[in-house]
Amino acid sequence: MTTSDTDLPALWTHEPHTHLEFKPGSSVTGIDPDATPGFVGSKRDAPVLQAERNIRFAELQEMLYANSRAGDTRSLLLVLQGMDTAGKGGIVKHVVGAGNPQGIDYASFGKPTEEELAHHYLWRIRNALPAAGHIGVFDRSHYEDVLIVRVHNLVPPEVWGARYDEINAFEKELVEGGTKIVKVAMFVSLDEQKKRLAERLERPDKFWKYNPADIDERLLWPKYQEAYQVMLDRTSTDYAPWHVIPCNRKWYSRLAILELLIEALKEFNFAWPPPDFDVKAEKKRLARA
Amino acid sequence: MTTSDTDLPALWTHEPHTHLEFKPGSSVTGIDPDATPGFVGSKRDAPVLQAERNIRFAELQEMLYANSRAGDTRSLLLVLQGMDTAGKGGIVKHVVGAGNPQGIDYASFGKPTEEELAHHYLWRIRNALPAAGHIGVFDRSHYEDVLIVRVHNLVPPEVWGARYDEINAFEKELVEGGTKIVKVAMFVSLDEQKKRLAERLERPDKFWKYNPADIDERLLWPKYQEAYQVMLDRTSTDYAPWHVIPCNRKWYSRLAILELLIEALKEFNFAWPPPDFDVKAEKKRLARA
Repeated sequence: MTTSDTDLPALWTHEPHTHLEFKPGSSVTGIDPDATPGFVGSKRDAPVLQAERNIRFAELQEMLYANSRAGDTRSLLLVLQGMDTAGKGGIVKHVVGAGNPQGIDYASFGKPTEEELAHHYLWRIRNALPAAGHIGVFDRSHYEDVLIVRVHNLVPPEVWGARYDEINAFEKELVEGGTKIVKVAMFVSLDEQKKRLAERLERPDKFWKYNPADIDERLLWPKYQEAYQVMLDRTSTDYAPWHVIPCNRKWYSRLAILELLIEALKEFNFAWPPPDFDVKAEKKRLARA
Repeated sequence: MTTSDTDLPALWTHEPHTHLEFKPGSSVTGIDPDATPGFVGSKRDAPVLQAERNIRFAELQEMLYANSRAGDTRSLLLVLQGMDTAGKGGIVKHVVGAGNPQGIDYASFGKPTEEELAHHYLWRIRNALPAAGHIGVFDRSHYEDVLIVRVHNLVPPEVWGARYDEINAFEKELVEGGTKIVKVAMFVSLDEQKKRLAERLERPDKFWKYNPADIDERLLWPKYQEAYQVMLDRTSTDYAPWHVIPCNRKWYSRLAILELLIEALKEFNFAWPPPDFDVKAEKKRLARA
């Protein structure tokens, strides 16, 4: 196993981040959720490719974990944001799920509890940060505090307005502390969302995923578009850029985010940690034991 | 998808717990770590069977999780104990790893930290219990407090001696609170352990798993056998029985523990939770939204 940069599957024209990184000045209304940027294969290619890259992801995760056991404190944080049905849960299940639970720190951020509301909005976020050598997954995140909170004015505008800079400072601190952050904004179309919500209302095994409040949020789509635009404009930094993921095709969004995670893990440039014991001496001890 | 009891694969002669539950009065020295009790297939059957049953496990996990979203507070706790190299890590990676990270609460219990030592030994255990609807995995557990602690007399005998009853009371409280406990004691032979430790000393990608202290513990094998015997004798209860897993064949131990988890999840007898909203009315709202 190596961490070479040459193992990008041929079905990607370039490393996915080059296609997916949010470009300053671009507009969310110009995003085509049906697109498959950078990928020249089709849905038929997806299962085999995903299975192969899941294995690569798991290998790299193990190497990250192994290094933490040898004292390295770095970690990875995947931040998932997107409207309902964009496929955040599918990423957790089918992409992150390829990893070893031993090194996955999953956290979801729904409506804050009373205890959470009694603290700074980043309190619950800080409590859920990944341990050294782990991959953290935020299913929704601190960005809720400039999305739903902004759309509904749950706090005064001057309060949420100050959060963009605060979040940038917070993330800078994380990155400087050794946490690589992969932020993905998942975009599904209004029509596709309708289909996916309708499916949840058709299938008894999906009822539990349906929440009547999803429709209330859906009706605020333009306001959310605006909130996403400002979020992307103001919190895409060189140390923690946003990636824009078209999500109407689940197979594409999964492959794309999987590849972003692999890229990020490779950037650590880890090798297997050297032994912190005398291998020969231990072999002798073992032979006698 | 159903939760019928008739889906046991034909390669198992009986539900695995009937073969694997610790039988009062039986001796750990009589355990054959090479055995494959109850399984009439071979290693060649394992990959396909494991893949199939991993899917079944994931379906049942989703149903447990779904019910918690509808207010059910039950959970499952897998307790893994075994000597070094018995394969605990493999169970986490290859069996628990088949589940959705969203509903897995993994915790490992190594040498206690200073903060942990400043508390009751069950403090760190209670802090790591699975949330409602989740599957908790203890990679080592409170049983360390009657295993390594007993073997090394890290606390006076009257202190560890009192823990068996305490643990039984603790687990009773958990079970009464809705947590189903699956306890597995994983047995590897001395010879097989030697092989596995040797492999860790041969392969640079395995050095990080090797710890010189493993040999010190290996030299105390008879004392550990005794500690395991007393643990099994005194903490096998009708509400939280121990299972004895022969682990020289990794493919068997994984299939066996996977099946124990499936059995336990089936015992919850869950169905998909009914909608807590008016399906027809929501369909109308969605059509207009």
